Amino acid sequence: EFVARPSGIATMCKLPFQQSAEGLDAAFIGVPIDTGTSNRPGARFGPRQIRAESALLRQYCGGTRAAPYESLVVADIGDVNVNVYDLKDTCKRIREAYREIMAAGCVPLTLGGDHTISYPILQAVAEKHGPVGLIHVDAHADTSDVVLGEKIGHGTPFRRCVEEGLLDCGRVAQIGLRGSAYSADAYRWNREQQGFRVVPAEECWSKSLTPLMADIRQQVGGGPVYLSFDIDALDPAFAPGTGTPEIAGLTPIQALEIIRGCRGLRLVGCDLVEVSPPYDTTGNTALTAANLLFEMMCVLPKVKYY
Amino acid sequence: EFVARPSGIATMCKLPFQQSAEGLDAAFIGVPIDTGTSNRPGARFGPRQIRAESALLRQYCGGTRAAPYESLVVADIGDVNVNVYDLKDTCKRIREAYREIMAAGCVPLTLGGDHTISYPILQAVAEKHGPVGLIHVDAHADTSDVVLGEKIGHGTPFRRCVEEGLLDCGRVAQIGLRGSAYSADAYRWNREQQGFRVVPAEECWSKSLTPLMADIRQQVGGGPVYLSFDIDALDPAFAPGTGTPEIAGLTPIQALEIIRGCRGLRLVGCDLVEVSPPYDTTGNTALTAANLLFEMMCVLPKVKYY
Amino acid sequence: EFVARPSGIATMCKLPFQQSAEGLDAAFIGVPIDTGTSNRPGARFGPRQIRAESALLRQYCGGTRAAPYESLVVADIGDVNVNVYDLKDTCKRIREAYREIMAAGCVPLTLGGDHTISYPILQAVAEKHGPVGLIHVDAHADTSDVVLGEKIGHGTPFRRCVEEGLLDCGRVAQIGLRGSAYSADAYRWNREQQGFRVVPAEECWSKSLTPLMADIRQQVGGGPVYLSFDIDALDPAFAPGTGTPEIAGLTPIQALEIIRGCRGLRLVGCDLVEVSPPYDTTGNTALTAANLLFEMMCVLPKVKYY
Amino acid sequence: EFVARPSGIATMCKLPFQQSAEGLDAAFIGVPIDTGTSNRPGARFGPRQIRAESALLRQYCGGTRAAPYESLVVADIGDVNVNVYDLKDTCKRIREAYREIMAAGCVPLTLGGDHTISYPILQAVAEKHGPVGLIHVDAHADTSDVVLGEKIGHGTPFRRCVEEGLLDCGRVAQIGLRGSAYSADAYRWNREQQGFRVVPAEECWSKSLTPLMADIRQQVGGGPVYLSFDIDALDPAFAPGTGTPEIAGLTPIQALEIIRGCRGLRLVGCDLVEVSPPYDTTGNTALTAANLLFEMMCVLPKVKYY
Amino acid sequence: EFVARPSGIATMCKLPFQQSAEGLDAAFIGVPIDTGTSNRPGARFGPRQIRAESALLRQYCGGTRAAPYESLVVADIGDVNVNVYDLKDTCKRIREAYREIMAAGCVPLTLGGDHTISYPILQAVAEKHGPVGLIHVDAHADTSDVVLGEKIGHGTPFRRCVEEGLLDCGRVAQIGLRGSAYSADAYRWNREQQGFRVVPAEECWSKSLTPLMADIRQQVGGGPVYLSFDIDALDPAFAPGTGTPEIAGLTPIQALEIIRGCRGLRLVGCDLVEVSPPYDTTGNTALTAANLLFEMMCVLPKVKYY
Amino acid sequence: EFVARPSGIATMCKLPFQQSAEGLDAAFIGVPIDTGTSNRPGARFGPRQIRAESALLRQYCGGTRAAPYESLVVADIGDVNVNVYDLKDTCKRIREAYREIMAAGCVPLTLGGDHTISYPILQAVAEKHGPVGLIHVDAHADTSDVVLGEKIGHGTPFRRCVEEGLLDCGRVAQIGLRGSAYSADAYRWNREQQGFRVVPAEECWSKSLTPLMADIRQQVGGGPVYLSFDIDALDPAFAPGTGTPEIAGLTPIQALEIIRGCRGLRLVGCDLVEVSPPYDTTGNTALTAANLLFEMMCVLPKVKYY
Ligand SMILES: [Mn+2]
Ligand SMILES: [Mn+2]
Ligand SMILES: [Mn+2]
Ligand SMILES: [Mn+2]
Ligand SMILES: [Mn+2]
Ligand SMILES: [Mn+2]
Ligand SMILES: [Mn+2]
Ligand SMILES: [Mn+2]
Ligand SMILES: [Mn+2]
Ligand SMILES: [Mn+2]
Ligand SMILES: [Mn+2]
Ligand SMILES: [Mn+2]
Repeated sequence: EFVARPSGIATMCKLPFQQSAEGLDAAFIGVPIDTGTSNRPGARFGPRQIRAESALLRQYCGGTRAAPYESLVVADIGDVNVNVYDLKDTCKRIREAYREIMAAGCVPLTLGGDHTISYPILQAVAEKHGPVGLIHVDAHADTSDVVLGEKIGHGTPFRRCVEEGLLDCGRVAQIGLRGSAYSADAYRWNREQQGFRVVPAEECWSKSLTPLMADIRQQVGGGPVYLSFDIDALDPAFAPGTGTPEIAGLTPIQALEIIRGCRGLRLVGCDLVEVSPPYDTTGNTALTAANLLFEMMCVLPKVKYY
Repeated sequence: EFVARPSGIATMCKLPFQQSAEGLDAAFIGVPIDTGTSNRPGARFGPRQIRAESALLRQYCGGTRAAPYESLVVADIGDVNVNVYDLKDTCKRIREAYREIMAAGCVPLTLGGDHTISYPILQAVAEKHGPVGLIHVDAHADTSDVVLGEKIGHGTPFRRCVEEGLLDCGRVAQIGLRGSAYSADAYRWNREQQGFRVVPAEECWSKSLTPLMADIRQQVGGGPVYLSFDIDALDPAFAPGTGTPEIAGLTPIQALEIIRGCRGLRLVGCDLVEVSPPYDTTGNTALTAANLLFEMMCVLPKVKYY
Repeated sequence: EFVARPSGIATMCKLPFQQSAEGLDAAFIGVPIDTGTSNRPGARFGPRQIRAESALLRQYCGGTRAAPYESLVVADIGDVNVNVYDLKDTCKRIREAYREIMAAGCVPLTLGGDHTISYPILQAVAEKHGPVGLIHVDAHADTSDVVLGEKIGHGTPFRRCVEEGLLDCGRVAQIGLRGSAYSADAYRWNREQQGFRVVPAEECWSKSLTPLMADIRQQVGGGPVYLSFDIDALDPAFAPGTGTPEIAGLTPIQALEIIRGCRGLRLVGCDLVEVSPPYDTTGNTALTAANLLFEMMCVLPKVKYY
Repeated sequence: EFVARPSGIATMCKLPFQQSAEGLDAAFIGVPIDTGTSNRPGARFGPRQIRAESALLRQYCGGTRAAPYESLVVADIGDVNVNVYDLKDTCKRIREAYREIMAAGCVPLTLGGDHTISYPILQAVAEKHGPVGLIHVDAHADTSDVVLGEKIGHGTPFRRCVEEGLLDCGRVAQIGLRGSAYSADAYRWNREQQGFRVVPAEECWSKSLTPLMADIRQQVGGGPVYLSFDIDALDPAFAPGTGTPEIAGLTPIQALEIIRGCRGLRLVGCDLVEVSPPYDTTGNTALTAANLLFEMMCVLPKVKYY
Repeated sequence: EFVARPSGIATMCKLPFQQSAEGLDAAFIGVPIDTGTSNRPGARFGPRQIRAESALLRQYCGGTRAAPYESLVVADIGDVNVNVYDLKDTCKRIREAYREIMAAGCVPLTLGGDHTISYPILQAVAEKHGPVGLIHVDAHADTSDVVLGEKIGHGTPFRRCVEEGLLDCGRVAQIGLRGSAYSADAYRWNREQQGFRVVPAEECWSKSLTPLMADIRQQVGGGPVYLSFDIDALDPAFAPGTGTPEIAGLTPIQALEIIRGCRGLRLVGCDLVEVSPPYDTTGNTALTAANLLFEMMCVLPKVKYY
Repeated sequence: EFVARPSGIATMCKLPFQQSAEGLDAAFIGVPIDTGTSNRPGARFGPRQIRAESALLRQYCGGTRAAPYESLVVADIGDVNVNVYDLKDTCKRIREAYREIMAAGCVPLTLGGDHTISYPILQAVAEKHGPVGLIHVDAHADTSDVVLGEKIGHGTPFRRCVEEGLLDCGRVAQIGLRGSAYSADAYRWNREQQGFRVVPAEECWSKSLTPLMADIRQQVGGGPVYLSFDIDALDPAFAPGTGTPEIAGLTPIQALEIIRGCRGLRLVGCDLVEVSPPYDTTGNTALTAANLLFEMMCVLPKVKYY
């Protein structure tokens, strides 16, 4: 029978809730923190709000004819129980939760939470898959060594990942970077020292990103790859509800081109981070996030397309 | 182990979710409609928002030392699946859902939804218990015969209940009524023809309602009684997020005096209706509703007090 | 036939619109300015928003059984066409518009606009009635000689009125005054030099104002009297949408006690000023204003009570 | 004389209000419902808010040099008086109101209200003109047979129109469709069975729609045509205040290209639907709607261009 | 010369900014953190927003005729530079900053920030003055041993203070406590083990607190005393912009009675904490905080009253 | 040492505050008025809000490698003290304040305030530099002779400038003009009588403006030029917080192309006007303004690029 949109406990896409990832091909999971945030907080309520707005999502991807639920067993497995007072302990808790998901052979689709979380998630992912490729969509490089004197936070996760060998650096692409910077040549470490492909927002302006994604699929190849999407990659007009917005960003059209351009890759995990509901006055940032997470599910390996 | 407040699927008071009322002493249940509303809509999202804000609630009632969870088995049983396009069909669906709850011997604590829902709920309640007493807290009498030409809506539920013999009219009290009216003597039908006790807001202004509740406990006696609380009974300063606000209303202090004053009664069901999240810009109306529902649970029969 | 609340051009209380005051006992009229404001602007949209929210108002006063529309011919006569760039010219335009209303023998019920407007309105009123009594409800005395170097503005209207002999100073009462001040003895000019009755908010706290109004009716007697109600008299919890809010103010209950306490006086005009919609995030300040204006109409001379 | 923008009863574009369409070439008219909505409500206040924001509109179209008021007699004729409790009765009321407008030889420019209203409007339009062409701009096809078990609602109007022969199906174009779907091939019925031209959003992305409109003018030819514009056709960044937003939509530039591209067609009616003020936190969705309605008026037959 | 309210860099009360407390009798200082928060964040922006709204404050206290600026040298000394990623390091930074203020013989008037900050502030205060009396106004006791597994946070500051001997426990009063609780007898530790005077909200309801303050002045005597005011002591209607609101709280009238009731005490520091601007949709919570801080300044020792 | 983003008195870009322009190469300065506004007010709080949001800005321009602070001595010199009650007096105050800035040889970077302010600013600028070139980015031409009967206001500044010979008309370009108009050929005076280059929004749609700026650099040549940027040039999706929004405007990408395209010109002053915080519900319009002002600083003469 049909279910009215406002009706029912707010799980992601009105999927069933279950306690663990056992038996699932993919799982939506929340990591409700914002203690890694340097500016506006609120991302701790990202998972709750994304779930609420996801009630609008239907079963098929109209644009690509993907039929994710005919292909995969998916559920909402709730949230990692974070420590709101200790970011380092939170990281440990995340890593342990994701170890279990990885052990279950399940692909995590993460509802953030601030971007700090990608670091412990990738620890668990790399423990299973070895160093992975990374498609990182963001206004920020998130590869600072230290932010405000600290090593762990939403400006440093991929630096930590590189240090720990979690990334296959030649298979890393960063898309959408922009904004004022702490140094004149802000992406040198990424490009010259690590060999990342860095695509600043300026190179994306007013262009389809479909050709870029063809290149990136070449770069990334057939190995395991992780997709990390910071909602602030989008222009603030499209995603006002976030903590460190930067003007002149990507469009939702480009976001879909990026995600749909990941079809065919061996995605082993995805996250959508930095949705801050207190700054999302209409709920549309969370709704956008819900759509992007749905589209990520649609490009997971083995999804059937009509 | 502790659970961070932002963490977890948003059920009422972080209680476990289960599909039916079987085995429960009391159940939180949502009825997400606003199609009975005459002015501002939005109450369809009341249950979702009340659940979200209820994450702040702890296990005990600090003010009264009630220990509801040491006394009762309680869960969140989700929402009635309403028909957003047909209010009469929705009423049928509500009645059927509550029949099952009543059959399970469970006390429903309802998260509305607009006030129309009390009519089909009381149909199911009276089917089990016979005509019941009613403590109705509201800015409006909700006993119009017809509103805007229609018999079913949020201005008429208790008229319908009277017509169908669901209420024990001598055991009905209405508290907080006020505002501009369709006739000069707006409560005559209630008082003179039905014998309701009507306590307009003017009689409540700047007073403790504890003495009033002593009187009402006398009036209501030991029979089954239903508590229906329209959030617009409160002054709009305390509950802005509602559809037909009326100025100069009750305070949350008075709301607690009313609910705590129901302790000792044989409550067979309670509802909290008319929370409209789009007009609740801070979430605090939903938070207030969550607190009032928690307090209602605390005065159910058999709850232990320290 | 019934009319749905959202339906129809937004006139005050869904009354008919007409171009002039001819043939009316009372008229709702807007004065959409905020160029007299010293802090937050926005009151220029007060009339529009008060009209929009007034759609909730019904025909009778439930609390007092007043039947205004059985007693008076009332319409909405639109707005004074103000000069948003020149406050002094605006004052002239207001005075001229109100002269015509007074000439028609009609009582103006004004939707403000900032409090500057009471000065030119009282010029027209006193031209017809001679010096009038004044019941002035406000957080502020509005009797500064000069504010920020200027003579005309929302902090000075009643000083100008006194200077021009528009007020019968022994028949003036100011209620609700409070807040930080430009001098230690802020109300001395009012009390000692003009003989106003000044009732600071501190004297109103946690009290019914019904006894005060009995006194004030004595003070004001049978002569013509004007009621000027600045919405910031209310505590900001009840009226957040205003430009210079001061904490610890009056309640809507007290506002009703004041207005209902004017019954029997010879009211020759009323205004409700300083509603600033951009700061009224829920619309409830405008709704409160609409209710207060409706209640003012209910206490005009000759209104029938059941 | 000039009129200040905040001044005056809020009619559409500050036009005079009149009770009927008699004597008018075109009329703005509101249909304030949202009871056909499946997700977020609020569109019942669309007409009121669009009128309020339309105060900014001037007399000429700067971009095209159209002079609508030198060409046409236009007024605001208020709202259809809807039944907020019975959607089917509302449809009847709409149909009857539009019959009168059609009888007066007037072109209705409708302020919605949810999209359900296009069905009864088209009943009246086709009664006069026979089956009409349709340019339907929307994120959704709105041609479901049944939504949530019901035949009448905002997801089904054009299915009903086809069933009743109100549309000349070869002269129907749908532009901007997108989003998740209830089936993998969501537009097959439209394209293959009815011969509609369907232009999904993906085909519009990052393109001028001026060439598309040249094609559509060919397709539609010289017969009577109706323009139905759902504000959710726009990307939610440009029109956040709507009930079922879908990401990656059209831009206002494209909206103007579509409407301006209708110049020369024999437009017999236009609507702008689905503006939901409670979700339009800045008023800019309503302002956008007001602009689009103004532009529709500018492309009606016989409008003079300088 | 006069200064327009919107004009100028936003310091507290438009006071001059200076880098240190040298030469000051009292200093406004901000501590912009929210990493001690268990529920809604945002208090990190409290100081900035309180300063912005404080532009409305004038030089004298209208209600009490206090003339603070004729009595004391006061300035705004900016914010403690906190570590947003490490709450324990932040505490150290706060303690050090306040040591310097205490060394300068200056009374700090603190703009919070979450309530964690009172712990390191009191460390510095007690280092100078020895164990101090405490007037703690709050919805919460903030004396948990551990919250969510952690010792440092906004639920524990006064437990830590007791453990470290910073408080003179017989001279501690807690006012306004309420809400759901983690145990049935929530305030036993405070009352029975430490000898605090605990005044739950229920004992404050609908009463003047002036008599209570007379008692508390007796209790506190002539020794050094610290005033810590959590804005959530107020009912959420008056202070919606806070992180853990509890219904049925104090009124601003009572807040003024408490603060004005501190006149004559030997206040050695004051704070106003837990204002969360993202939840303060009108700015009025910050405005209330600004007023309360101004009133605290007015009751410092040596302030002149007219 | 690092400074946390929420920390510190809110000056522009966390720069030091100083009282005068002495010794500065460039200065941020606010002009907090909105009394020149014809529609929505609020721009008086623009400077305060832009400063607050500017806390996110770092030291370098990531996109262009500009290092403004290695090149120029810059500070925030506060606001012009305006007369909120008299627009003409305010203009005089602005002119005098800018004369001092010009005398100090400092380039003013102005935070508006409504667009009226550009007129007195240009009086001071031309007094020093003679008639200047102008790059004016706006939805509106702002060259009306009279608006609503008045000569001074935000619709007339550049008409006044032309009349007073402040502009070198052949070196004036206006970009982004659009919207409904008071006449059919709205820009004739500008183009035909004054020889301005007028680039309506329609000519900008969906295009890079980098080629346009190459042309404009040719047009403007090596003489002194002023850049005046009205935030309403941007589409309202990107800048909702403004007083007279017009749909289908420029993008932030185009804004950056325009500003970065000014590199190499002899800029003698820049302003960013019309940010209205009450309509900027997320703060992102102010954040956009802060970014654009930062980018303006980056293209001032003598700024070093890496
Ligand atoms: Mn990131
Ligand atoms: Mn980012
Ligand atoms: Mn009700
Ligand atoms: Mn009600
Ligand atoms: Mn006033
Ligand atoms: Mn006032
Ligand atoms: Mn539609
Ligand atoms: Mn649609
Ligand atoms: Mn606290
Ligand atoms: Mn607290
Ligand atoms: Mn302009
Ligand atoms: Mn403009």
